[in-house]
Amino acid sequence: MNKEILIVGAGRSASSLIKYLLEKSTSENFHLTIGDLSLELAQKKAMNHPNASAVQLDLFNEAERRKYVEQADLVISMLPAALHIELAKDCIRYKKHMVTASYISPAMAELDEEVKRNNLVFMNEAGLDPGIDHMSAMKVIHDIKNKGGKVISFESFCGGLIAPESDNNLWNYKFTWNPRNVVLAGQGGAAKFIQEGQYKYIPYNKVFRRTEFLEVEGYGRFEAYANRDSLKYQHVYGLEDAKTIFRGTIRRMGYSRAWNLFVELGVTDDTYHIENSENMSYREFFNLYLPYHPTDRVETKLRLALNIDQDDIVWDKLVELDIFNADKKIGLKNATPAQILEKILSDSWTLAPDDKDMIVMYHKIGYSLNNENKQIDSTMICIGDDQTYTAMAKTVGLPVAIAALKILKGIISTPGVQIPISEEVYLPILKELEENGIVFHEKEVEYQGY
Amino acid sequence: MNKEILIVGAGRSASSLIKYLLEKSTSENFHLTIGDLSLELAQKKAMNHPNASAVQLDLFNEAERRKYVEQADLVISMLPAALHIELAKDCIRYKKHMVTASYISPAMAELDEEVKRNNLVFMNEAGLDPGIDHMSAMKVIHDIKNKGGKVISFESFCGGLIAPESDNNLWNYKFTWNPRNVVLAGQGGAAKFIQEGQYKYIPYNKVFRRTEFLEVEGYGRFEAYANRDSLKYQHVYGLEDAKTIFRGTIRRMGYSRAWNLFVELGVTDDTYHIENSENMSYREFFNLYLPYHPTDRVETKLRLALNIDQDDIVWDKLVELDIFNADKKIGLKNATPAQILEKILSDSWTLAPDDKDMIVMYHKIGYSLNNENKQIDSTMICIGDDQTYTAMAKTVGLPVAIAALKILKGIISTPGVQIPISEEVYLPILKELEENGIVFHEKEVEYQGY
Repeated sequence: MNKEILIVGAGRSASSLIKYLLEKSTSENFHLTIGDLSLELAQKKAMNHPNASAVQLDLFNEAERRKYVEQADLVISMLPAALHIELAKDCIRYKKHMVTASYISPAMAELDEEVKRNNLVFMNEAGLDPGIDHMSAMKVIHDIKNKGGKVISFESFCGGLIAPESDNNLWNYKFTWNPRNVVLAGQGGAAKFIQEGQYKYIPYNKVFRRTEFLEVEGYGRFEAYANRDSLKYQHVYGLEDAKTIFRGTIRRMGYSRAWNLFVELGVTDDTYHIENSENMSYREFFNLYLPYHPTDRVETKLRLALNIDQDDIVWDKLVELDIFNADKKIGLKNATPAQILEKILSDSWTLAPDDKDMIVMYHKIGYSLNNENKQIDSTMICIGDDQTYTAMAKTVGLPVAIAALKILKGIISTPGVQIPISEEVYLPILKELEENGIVFHEKEVEYQGY
Repeated sequence: MNKEILIVGAGRSASSLIKYLLEKSTSENFHLTIGDLSLELAQKKAMNHPNASAVQLDLFNEAERRKYVEQADLVISMLPAALHIELAKDCIRYKKHMVTASYISPAMAELDEEVKRNNLVFMNEAGLDPGIDHMSAMKVIHDIKNKGGKVISFESFCGGLIAPESDNNLWNYKFTWNPRNVVLAGQGGAAKFIQEGQYKYIPYNKVFRRTEFLEVEGYGRFEAYANRDSLKYQHVYGLEDAKTIFRGTIRRMGYSRAWNLFVELGVTDDTYHIENSENMSYREFFNLYLPYHPTDRVETKLRLALNIDQDDIVWDKLVELDIFNADKKIGLKNATPAQILEKILSDSWTLAPDDKDMIVMYHKIGYSLNNENKQIDSTMICIGDDQTYTAMAKTVGLPVAIAALKILKGIISTPGVQIPISEEVYLPILKELEENGIVFHEKEVEYQGY
């Protein structure tokens, strides 16, 4: 097709995206320009491929930015969400398509009319979550509606975990993505959802105690805690008839119950700073949250404060993290409790060089058809190849890459600022994801209801 | 002395203040101008007293404000803390003294040099808490230092409660002051203090579970939960040697354990709004925080979620508040959980016409003298006369009034923006408070330590 794709941002999440596009570039006849503030990073990702050029690109240099946008037919922005908007305006200026993996910002949404007027496709939320979750859920929802059914409950779960072959700690968890988000999970207002037609709220101190269990054939059991706002896509997905709408984050069984100990202690707080944190030991840090006692050990006080039985496995999980170590120093100046906890967890939860990650997605969609209640469970597991082509990089990058090519080839052509919820978009992308090992297994199961 | 006092703000907390000044006005020969945005309120408080005039005063009308300040010798501001600063600047302009019951704001602190240059006294934090707490604590601290002792621990507690004769509910509590502050107590970061030389933090979910017990002769037992920042006055009080510094809020025994149920449920949150709150029943509101169940009652789910034994008195406390009522509507549009809870509590905790309030203050001050550890407990109980001359109005207003007269008479004369922590200030005020029934009982007790 003799086209040009500009990729802006060559960071961690762009590895699988770029690899996929490079592999397709000869057969599909297109050229790739990879731009990043770091030329070195761009060059590394271009891998001296004849169909790719690496360039240094400073997003805040308008002339430079516009030069590259003008040369392209489609722009993929893998930058943080807040940085898309200037690129998006340039894309309108030069009539170029655009693809991102980020949530549509209000500023992006405002461009819709102009984008349509110029017959352009601005595909957003085309990564994993948001992205693959939209596509795989909408496929099931549309299938149900097409055969005359009505969706009566919708639950959707996703989690970035450690692959079974690398799963060697008691928490069955390691940091495979942004550790900060893991530490702050559930904070900032209650989790909100609908259960059997009733609004429900779970406050932070209960989020990790009201989990739901999931089982994926061949991968065992998981649990999920509620996301903050389960209702965001209620109307986007057309779930007006659904009496239950719940979205959650997947962990291995037992993680949440242990994590809740940190919530109870108060060590996940990010709203204040601890003086002298730098020279404080891990043990001293935890002792900040326990009453003074002249003789009782920190261990004893913590067991008592959290009411941990002597034979409870959560105790071993805490010990494994070395939280009682009196020699290890925090080494962070004036840090918040959350920052300190992240530091302590990183000692134990950082991926080893050969570790692989795993993405798990699980939809439970209940529906009624001919006065009968039924349920479809749709599950996807993706395991990373290594620490470059992680499951996260694959599941975020491949749908973006596939969307870009489908747009360039005119297979996806309905104009506008959009997310991948129409058949035109998700069918070809899901098909090609499947060919690349990202496969959803749909299964009719008994309706669970309540 | 033929002086003129301007009182700005004639609200609830000014009743005892004005009554006291009116009573003294003839013998001490001064005149009172009472200004309020509501002339009616000012007139009511002036009680047609020959030595008082009531005027309408709009603080934002500069000419008017300055006119009254210029006519006075001393200005008492009983306005909210944020509104003092313009008055304070006028006081400097016309060389007038000033008294408030509020915390010194940074803007007020900045005036110190100018106030000193003009030989004026700007007395702040001269009410109850802050106010009487400073004075009564500093008296004990100075006494200890004067006899060669060293303060090794400092704990200070204060609470606004219901008087024993009006105490007729299971919580032993009614709203005697600002209900909103009661509902939000403990929120916004962990409570911070020092225990035996170690910093300690208590997160919100534990604040009401780590209480301390107090006993006041003739009044029985109380409990106290930690204030947010116990360390604010560490250096102001000269407590550099104290290994324990703790400030707390006093409630009757059992209040905190029951209150913590609301914390656990999540109904004290003020950070988000509930749609359709107006037409929601009390029962429906609490059900928002409990899992859905097709047959279990709200009562059963709540007992289970909070793990309440069938014979636990906290259950009766909840029932007393009528939280399970399916007919009572909240009646507040788009309210936060905290606002809704305040509404529900107000049904049960609003003072009846004959109810009286009670202020309790308790200091425990440990010290070492001649290599011996000792302790002085200083306690004060004040009961309101009625719902105008409440214990709160008396303990906030009288020290302000007394401070004002002592300044006018030159008994308190050291210039500057200050709080009542020097002998010159607290000795005459405490003495006169005692004559007015606000009496501290100091008692040598065994050092408690840890």
